[in-house]
Amino acid sequence: MWKELLPIGRAGSGGYRRFAWTGPDAECRAWFRAQAEARGLAYEVDANGNQWAWAGDKDAGDAVVTGSHLDSVPDGGAFDGPLGVISAFAAHDELRARGVTFRRPFAVVNFADEEGARFGVACVGSRLLTGSLTREGAHALRDAEGISLPQAMEAAGHDPGALGPEPERLARIGAFVELHIEQGRTLAAASDSAAAGSHRIAVASAIWPHGRWRFDFRGEANHAGTTRLEDRRDPMLTYANTVLAARKKARLAGALATFGKVTVEPNGVNAVPSRVSGWLDSRAPDEETLASVVAQIETAAAERGGRDGVAVEVTRESATPLVEFDHALRDRLVELLGGQVPVLPTGAGHDAGILSASVPTAMLYVRNPTGVSHSPAEFAEEDDCAAGVVALADVLEGLV
Amino acid sequence: MWKELLPIGRAGSGGYRRFAWTGPDAECRAWFRAQAEARGLAYEVDANGNQWAWAGDKDAGDAVVTGSHLDSVPDGGAFDGPLGVISAFAAHDELRARGVTFRRPFAVVNFADEEGARFGVACVGSRLLTGSLTREGAHALRDAEGISLPQAMEAAGHDPGALGPEPERLARIGAFVELHIEQGRTLAAASDSAAAGSHRIAVASAIWPHGRWRFDFRGEANHAGTTRLEDRRDPMLTYANTVLAARKKARLAGALATFGKVTVEPNGVNAVPSRVSGWLDSRAPDEETLASVVAQIETAAAERGGRDGVAVEVTRESATPLVEFDHALRDRLVELLGGQVPVLPTGAGHDAGILSASVPTAMLYVRNPTGVSHSPAEFAEEDDCAAGVVALADVLEGLV
Repeated sequence: MWKELLPIGRAGSGGYRRFAWTGPDAECRAWFRAQAEARGLAYEVDANGNQWAWAGDKDAGDAVVTGSHLDSVPDGGAFDGPLGVISAFAAHDELRARGVTFRRPFAVVNFADEEGARFGVACVGSRLLTGSLTREGAHALRDAEGISLPQAMEAAGHDPGALGPEPERLARIGAFVELHIEQGRTLAAASDSAAAGSHRIAVASAIWPHGRWRFDFRGEANHAGTTRLEDRRDPMLTYANTVLAARKKARLAGALATFGKVTVEPNGVNAVPSRVSGWLDSRAPDEETLASVVAQIETAAAERGGRDGVAVEVTRESATPLVEFDHALRDRLVELLGGQVPVLPTGAGHDAGILSASVPTAMLYVRNPTGVSHSPAEFAEEDDCAAGVVALADVLEGLV
Repeated sequence: MWKELLPIGRAGSGGYRRFAWTGPDAECRAWFRAQAEARGLAYEVDANGNQWAWAGDKDAGDAVVTGSHLDSVPDGGAFDGPLGVISAFAAHDELRARGVTFRRPFAVVNFADEEGARFGVACVGSRLLTGSLTREGAHALRDAEGISLPQAMEAAGHDPGALGPEPERLARIGAFVELHIEQGRTLAAASDSAAAGSHRIAVASAIWPHGRWRFDFRGEANHAGTTRLEDRRDPMLTYANTVLAARKKARLAGALATFGKVTVEPNGVNAVPSRVSGWLDSRAPDEETLASVVAQIETAAAERGGRDGVAVEVTRESATPLVEFDHALRDRLVELLGGQVPVLPTGAGHDAGILSASVPTAMLYVRNPTGVSHSPAEFAEEDDCAAGVVALADVLEGLV
């Protein structure tokens, strides 16, 4: 299966550019359909463009569903998404090989537009399905060229007329399990340490709450060659101090804080800036810790701003609450995997996080030796991927 | 004179956009010509587009020349440049009112394209005149729309056929004095302090050596939501630490260091950057101090980069050596101004700095209460401007 999927949408960098409803995405979707049909699974596309491949009566209810997504971020890796879909088909094959009798309906799913690379909103397919993105919201989405999501769907041959929530479809799902490459190296680090033993697979506990905050630092533009240091109100200094404070506060709290985007005015080599804006991405195990870390960073920024003569304004641009995966399903997965499997939280959003509000949901992670993700260097060992398929099959065998 | 010049090229911001060889520049140049002709001064434009207004025989040699420039940076102030040209005409009028006999030829000059806002090179008119910018170099200059300097000159009605050095013209100048608003608040700070007394005017000693260095910080792009802090190689941290180190090293050495421009890849809110590039502008009283400060900043960057897993590469993009103004002329100015005038260095480049390599050159600074420059907020008190005209007249009376 990898061989057919690997060349699709691959850029010169070695990374993938499989953006929703583009040519490479259509090729991936054709691959999905072919995989379904080759196994005699009933193929369907729902109102929101998500692809399903069914074994058994899809309308019977209490279905066991597994899968992920096939689209990518710009210059993304080969594993984020596709590993979950390929492992789903492979686990299906493994169950058949084991001679497992399916007592519940079973489906493999490919959620549309998980990465949000084209329209700027992540998990569009699952959000529309659950209603956390409305039909109106979807109609308002535009790509960089001004093409709306419905226009893009239509151009790719999908009728966007029925976009919107499908509560009956959700109600027929009894359990959703998404397998995903780990986007960090917690498993790899645990494997490094002899005491912890070697773990190829983990079960998800939760998705950390996270948010984005824009920090605007306003000082005074001035000539870099003539303005005495003591006469400056240089917002770059306040920004720099805030970047270092964010790292320190996050480290002490066991949280994450990143300044990955910055813009400067006028951004001239010989000009003290008038304004620096930096975007903070922060995530933490719980909402209280997250709020505390961000408050500490704001305080550090304001204190330093006071010394620099720089005004600091902080705007929250997004906030996503904690997702706790279904406890019973999580414990069942651990049990089905022999009880010795690590249970890990993650900082990344997934379709599973969206579905968890409506459906008992769980996730499996496959070890990532470098932890690199959203990059052509994203990688998992073949043995670990195989272990992922077996683990998913073990779990599905217990559920289906 | 101010009333006619003030509206030209003024933008909505209140700042000026008088870029070389544009419409507003042509209006400023027409104003210059009208001022010359109204006084019966002989108007001429040299091969490089610099405007001259002569009293006496311009070919006699040992001329006394004063002036500055009329073009501006984007959203520049009203004083940087125009104050020197207006004060030159006003000082001429003052000398006439005093009944001074001109024993030497005298000229007011407007150097073309001092700010370099359009073609990216500063002091084009004076550099071409002295040969520090070659004819070939000038032909290679392009603005943001791809228009070359000769094309722009021709479109503005100036024949660019004879662009290049004019050594005979330079040889006929015995002294050049440029009056300029101070681009800092050394005079204002001295006036704040009771002990130092109040000074409206200063004489220039030197232009500090300065340079630009690009610092490239290379780490590893990663997911901001999933990569553990200890697994990151985040170049934003190294950059931030370097910004703060630069400020500290410069302060301790009595130098200037500014990071005013930064670019980031991929500059995404949820991505640890792969690369941050920051541009250092640094200036110091002497070349040894400058080299030492920059070396200390490089060392601090490399040390922090080692801890962050970030590679640091430093490229010198420009270097301008120390300009020391003619000692005899500087001392003569101090004497002509009564001996109690401060003698100050500056970090900014000027046409006077270019001419000083070929002609005995001096500068006068007029107090700037806020120190703000290259901004609509640039300002000098009317009384201080009037004191500037009197000081320039006093100096010229002694020289002419």
